[in-house]
Amino acid sequence: MNYEKFIQEQIAYIKKTVGKEKAINALSGGVDSSVVTVLGHRAIGQQLKTIFVDNALMRKDEPERVVGIFTRLGINVELVNARKEFLTALAGITDPEHKRQAITDTFYSKLFSRLVKESGAKFLLHGTILTDIEETTAGIKRQHNILSQLGIDTEAAYGYSVIEPLKTLRKDGVREVARMLDLPAELTERIPFPGPALAARIVGEVTAERLDIVRAATVIVEEELADSGAFQYLAVLLNDRATGIRNNKREFGHIIVVRCIESTDARTATATQLPWEKLNSICERITRIKGVNRCLYDLTPKPPATVEYV
Amino acid sequence: MNYEKFIQEQIAYIKKTVGKEKAINALSGGVDSSVVTVLGHRAIGQQLKTIFVDNALMRKDEPERVVGIFTRLGINVELVNARKEFLTALAGITDPEHKRQAITDTFYSKLFSRLVKESGAKFLLHGTILTDIEETTAGIKRQHNILSQLGIDTEAAYGYSVIEPLKTLRKDGVREVARMLDLPAELTERIPFPGPALAARIVGEVTAERLDIVRAATVIVEEELADSGAFQYLAVLLNDRATGIRNNKREFGHIIVVRCIESTDARTATATQLPWEKLNSICERITRIKGVNRCLYDLTPKPPATVEYV
Repeated sequence: MNYEKFIQEQIAYIKKTVGKEKAINALSGGVDSSVVTVLGHRAIGQQLKTIFVDNALMRKDEPERVVGIFTRLGINVELVNARKEFLTALAGITDPEHKRQAITDTFYSKLFSRLVKESGAKFLLHGTILTDIEETTAGIKRQHNILSQLGIDTEAAYGYSVIEPLKTLRKDGVREVARMLDLPAELTERIPFPGPALAARIVGEVTAERLDIVRAATVIVEEELADSGAFQYLAVLLNDRATGIRNNKREFGHIIVVRCIESTDARTATATQLPWEKLNSICERITRIKGVNRCLYDLTPKPPATVEYV
Repeated sequence: MNYEKFIQEQIAYIKKTVGKEKAINALSGGVDSSVVTVLGHRAIGQQLKTIFVDNALMRKDEPERVVGIFTRLGINVELVNARKEFLTALAGITDPEHKRQAITDTFYSKLFSRLVKESGAKFLLHGTILTDIEETTAGIKRQHNILSQLGIDTEAAYGYSVIEPLKTLRKDGVREVARMLDLPAELTERIPFPGPALAARIVGEVTAERLDIVRAATVIVEEELADSGAFQYLAVLLNDRATGIRNNKREFGHIIVVRCIESTDARTATATQLPWEKLNSICERITRIKGVNRCLYDLTPKPPATVEYV
């Protein structure tokens, strides 16, 4: 594929579609939404408002870090604190589909439609990629960012039209485009991170306390595996607990699963054959997180497992 | 320790204690209860009645296999089918302590006290070892077979006295004794298996269907790791489920944890550093069990984890 031509075509397409109107987009810090942000700003400059929603589900220091990167690129990003809204919407929910639905509803129906209204934008730029569409239409998993493919008329429902410049690309294509747009390696080489963020890394209820546990585990896994060359690595907090023994007393503790995979496009994957020294050092650090007494490594390829648990 | 002398002392002790009365013991097929069975029969012969209770929690073909071994040793074992009693007692219970309690109650208060009464036995021979006593009194885990240490007066409560010939030994000592008693390697070298059997390998409710899943996983793990030289290896069925993908469709599947440890006496343990080829072959077979789409390997040493989950 000629990515230089792809970039020019998408910039022209966005410019022509938006015309003299305003557009808005939400940046998550992932490579998809980062590329859309840069394409959009190259196409329509100040007509595009980019927001970053702190939904309480982000990794440690992530909101400030991502906003800082774009500030240095000359792109202004508005940080919206919506932590309380999301935590309230997620309270008591354990079913994975309901969890995704609560995040989608809070984001689109409540928060984003209000932000769009306030901004006066008529267009939403969205980082949907081909794999999102395929997995959603195949019924494998409901990606939070698929709307028109599910028959939702965004213009009628939310008052804006959706522009999806990346919907013909897979993850490797998006990374190519990101590099050609001179995005920093911190973004272009960033491992994939799911739309529902750390909520996708919690089996069972998402609470501030449980987010803290999986956030601490995520810091450890990302530090330990940054040099692994793996396609993606993550930590999952299970809902189950297991018997353990600490200071000679019985303890009923949390279980963290570490997943690290080899893949080219996330459609299929295999577990990375990490060295035992690395596995042991990850386990040792993770079982020092308060209340955690088990660390498991996921051996399963995709299929039959998916990359995420929720 | 002089194990030859230990054996002679225990045989004399059992003979003297039981006198002209009858005794009974329950054989599980583990090395502890197997040694007690042989010591008891050498001490008092036909005065000892040995039963094997099929509690529905056993591994595949285990009841028939164990009874067959003792028949070949010239020791008669009565196989008691109590599958329904145990499954009924366990229905709806998810708390690990309540699960152990339900098994203890069903075994001692109901089934065994009836069997003792029918047999006219005044003594129960029991395979308690030192580690069981230590872990129970330390409050780490309630071993199902500790009675007097918990202050239960078995004579008043159940009508019999308990004789514990192995209560000064740890697992390695029991194995030494087993070898000197010429027990077959199938029993002496058998990996440890918990009192609550496969119920200790199920997080959440114990049902016939869930037992079938963990039983199938146990066959695979024991076949694959028989030559590993590890101290113990096991499969655990979690209560949590995870998203997967099978025949291009979303599937919400079961999760099996494989645990394999190095240890000398079960007081401390580390995860065995299995070759990746072995881990992958175990995972491949386990995810072919109907409804299972994840296979995890437990990296955690003891402490902070215990060997079992329940």
